[in-house]
Amino acid sequence: MAVITLTTDFGTRDTYVAEMKGVILSITRDVHLVDITHEIAPQDVLEGALTLQAASPRFPASTIHVAVVDPGVGTARRALAVAAADQLFVGPDNGLFTPFLGDRRWRAFELVAPEFRERAVSHTFHGRDIFAPAAAHLARGIEPARLGPAVTDPVRLDWPEPRVSEGRVAGAVLHVDRFVNLVTSIRAEAVGPLGPGVAVRVAGKSVPLVRTYGDLRPGNPGALFGSTDRLEIAVNAGSAARALRAGRGTPVVVSLTSSRRTKTRTRR
Amino acid sequence: MAVITLTTDFGTRDTYVAEMKGVILSITRDVHLVDITHEIAPQDVLEGALTLQAASPRFPASTIHVAVVDPGVGTARRALAVAAADQLFVGPDNGLFTPFLGDRRWRAFELVAPEFRERAVSHTFHGRDIFAPAAAHLARGIEPARLGPAVTDPVRLDWPEPRVSEGRVAGAVLHVDRFVNLVTSIRAEAVGPLGPGVAVRVAGKSVPLVRTYGDLRPGNPGALFGSTDRLEIAVNAGSAARALRAGRGTPVVVSLTSSRRTKTRTRR
Amino acid sequence: MAVITLTTDFGTRDTYVAEMKGVILSITRDVHLVDITHEIAPQDVLEGALTLQAASPRFPASTIHVAVVDPGVGTARRALAVAAADQLFVGPDNGLFTPFLGDRRWRAFELVAPEFRERAVSHTFHGRDIFAPAAAHLARGIEPARLGPAVTDPVRLDWPEPRVSEGRVAGAVLHVDRFVNLVTSIRAEAVGPLGPGVAVRVAGKSVPLVRTYGDLRPGNPGALFGSTDRLEIAVNAGSAARALRAGRGTPVVVSLTSSRRTKTRTRR
Repeated sequence: MAVITLTTDFGTRDTYVAEMKGVILSITRDVHLVDITHEIAPQDVLEGALTLQAASPRFPASTIHVAVVDPGVGTARRALAVAAADQLFVGPDNGLFTPFLGDRRWRAFELVAPEFRERAVSHTFHGRDIFAPAAAHLARGIEPARLGPAVTDPVRLDWPEPRVSEGRVAGAVLHVDRFVNLVTSIRAEAVGPLGPGVAVRVAGKSVPLVRTYGDLRPGNPGALFGSTDRLEIAVNAGSAARALRAGRGTPVVVSLTSSRRTKTRTRR
Repeated sequence: MAVITLTTDFGTRDTYVAEMKGVILSITRDVHLVDITHEIAPQDVLEGALTLQAASPRFPASTIHVAVVDPGVGTARRALAVAAADQLFVGPDNGLFTPFLGDRRWRAFELVAPEFRERAVSHTFHGRDIFAPAAAHLARGIEPARLGPAVTDPVRLDWPEPRVSEGRVAGAVLHVDRFVNLVTSIRAEAVGPLGPGVAVRVAGKSVPLVRTYGDLRPGNPGALFGSTDRLEIAVNAGSAARALRAGRGTPVVVSLTSSRRTKTRTRR
Repeated sequence: MAVITLTTDFGTRDTYVAEMKGVILSITRDVHLVDITHEIAPQDVLEGALTLQAASPRFPASTIHVAVVDPGVGTARRALAVAAADQLFVGPDNGLFTPFLGDRRWRAFELVAPEFRERAVSHTFHGRDIFAPAAAHLARGIEPARLGPAVTDPVRLDWPEPRVSEGRVAGAVLHVDRFVNLVTSIRAEAVGPLGPGVAVRVAGKSVPLVRTYGDLRPGNPGALFGSTDRLEIAVNAGSAARALRAGRGTPVVVSLTSSRRTKTRTRR
C-alpha cells in the first residue's frame, strides 16, 4: 500500500482537501492518505517548504508528498514531480521543493501528460486537477518520467541559511509552533552540542541553555535543540514569543567562546 | 475497499467525530475514512448541503457520504439513507441532501431497522448511534432498502437559485472560503464564458473579469469561475470580503449586453 | 488491519502529528490511523484523560491508543504501554491513563526496549521517537510485555468524582464542547433517570430537565444526559456557558426529593 501525504494552505473548513482525496481514491484505493498540515499560511511558499523538510524524512521510502501552496495557479508557472531523497514530491514549480534539491541525484519532470491529469483542468485548482491525479498515478507505480519532460532548472527559494563565522552563528526565528516555541534557522550541526562556552541571544537578550522543556524554570525562557535538530527557544508554561517579543524573522545568535569552534558545514 | 466520507458541524476538538469512526471500524475495517469537513457552522444545514454538493462529485461511484448537521436530533425528524448520483448519502432528514434530489433516480429509505443501529441509541448523538452504523453496513454491501421503508418526501431546502432573466443573472454570495474568496450561487452554465459583453457587480460595485487568481492586480478584486464552476470574486493578496464589504447573502449580478444571451437552464 | 488512534495537544498546524504517522507507517502499513483529537489544551493531562475515556469505548477490541500530552518529556517520567479494557494505551506515565486503571486486569509496561524505539531518541519529542514506534510494533502483534518491565504503580490523576450524599450529587463542569454545551462530572448511574423529583442547579441557578436539544426553548438552558451518559447543560441556539456564566470547574448539583434515592455506586 503506497503512502501519499498532503501539505496545503487550504485549511480544513472548505472542501478543497477532500476534493483532492476524492480524485486520488477515484484512481487508486491502495493508498494511505496522510495529512501533513493544511494550515500553511495562505500562499507562504517558504513555510510550505520548511514543513516538507521537517516532516518528509519520517516517512518511508517511496512516499509521495503532494504540496499545494500555489499563488501562481493557472499562470505560466510549471507543475512538477521531483524525485529526491528516495521519495517523490508533486506540486507547483515555485520553490516548495528547494530543500530536496540538495540531494545530488534529484530529478524533476513537468506534469504535462494529459493522461495523468483530470480531463478538465480548472484555472484555479491544479491541486485537484493536476497534482492529485499525478500523485495517484505515481502511487500506482507509474514512472515519474512518464508524467512529462525532464526539468533541469526548478525554481529555488532564497533559503534562510544562518551566517556562520568564526565563533558565531547568526540566524533567525523561522516558525512559532503551537506551544509558542521559537524554531530557528540554526541547526545542531552548525553549532555542535550546547553546553559551557556557548551563549544564545534572541532579539539581543541572553537565553540560558536547557536540555528539555521540563528543565525550564516556570516563566523563564531556555534554548535547546528540538526534535528536528534546530535550535529552539522555549518558555515553560508561557509564551516564548511574548516573553522575548519575538516572531518569525527575529535575529538569533549563537556565540562560542574561544574554547569552542564553529563548525562551518551546513546542509540544506 | 469502500469509501466513507464524513461531513459534520462537530469540529475536531471534541471526540464526536472519532466516536463515529470507532463505531464504523467496529463494524468494518475494509474502508477508507475521509473527512470532508467538520467545520460546518453549527447547525447550518444549507452550508452542509453546499459542501456535499461541492465535494461529492469528486469521489468514486458507491462512495458513502455521512453528513451530520442535525439540530433536530432526538426529535421526530427522520433518519435517511439516500441513493443518488451513483453514491449513497446518510444523515438526518432536514434538507442536507437537497442537491441530490435533482437526480431523477434518487431513492430514500428511513433508518429504522434495529440490526443496523447501535444497541443503545442516545437522544443526542445519532451520528454515532444511527448514521455511522448505517454507513458501515452499507460499506459492507448491505442494500439500502434493508435499512428501512422507502421515503418519498424527503425534506428539501429552499435552494439558493439565481434569478435568471433576459440579459441578467442575479444571485448572491454563498460562502467565503479560506482565501476569503466569495463563492456565489451563479454557475457557469447560467452565464456562459466570461468575456467581452459580460459585467459583474457585487454589492452594487463593478468587478473586472479575470482568468485566474494570478491575473489580479494586487489589492484589486476580480471575478472568475472557480473550481466548482461557480462565479467567485477574489482579491489578490487581500480580502475580497473586506474590500467589497461583502459576506454570505451579498447580492451579485451578472449583466450581459445584447450581443450575449443568458442561458436559462440551471441545475441543482 | 490494526487500528491506532492518536490523541495529542500538538494541534494540526505543525508537523508533529504527521511525523508520528510517518514513523508508524515506516514500521507497518497494515493499520488504520485515526485522529481522536490534537486540540487538547497544551499540557492539560486531565483533558487528555477525559478525551480517551469518552472516545476509546467506541473503538474495537485491540485498538491501540497513543496519547501524547507530555509536559515532562525528556525528564525522568516513565513511558508506558497499558493493557486494559481489551485495548492498549501508549504514552507518558503522567496520569493520562487513569480512567482505565479501574479495570481490575490492567497491566502496564515501561517502554525501554531499544529495539522498539527510534534509533535516536530526542529529548523533546517522545511521541515520535518512543510512543509511535511502540504503537506500530504493538499493531504488528508484539506482546506488550516485550516492550519493557512491568510497572505496578502508574501515576494516577486526582479524578474529578462527584460527591454523592443522601439525596444530592455535587459535581462540576468538566468540558465545554463545540456547541458550548457544558459536560459535567455527574454520570447517569449516580443519579438515575432524570424526571419528576430531580432538580439540577448550575452555579446556583436552577435548570429545567429536557430529553434532547430540540426540546429546549430558544435561548433557555436545559439539563439532560448526553451521549457519554454524563449530565450536560445546553442552551438551544445559544451558549450555555455564557447564559450561566459557567466554565470548567463551575459547580453543578443534582438534588433528589425524598421519593428518589441517590445511587451511590460510581465508576471511573
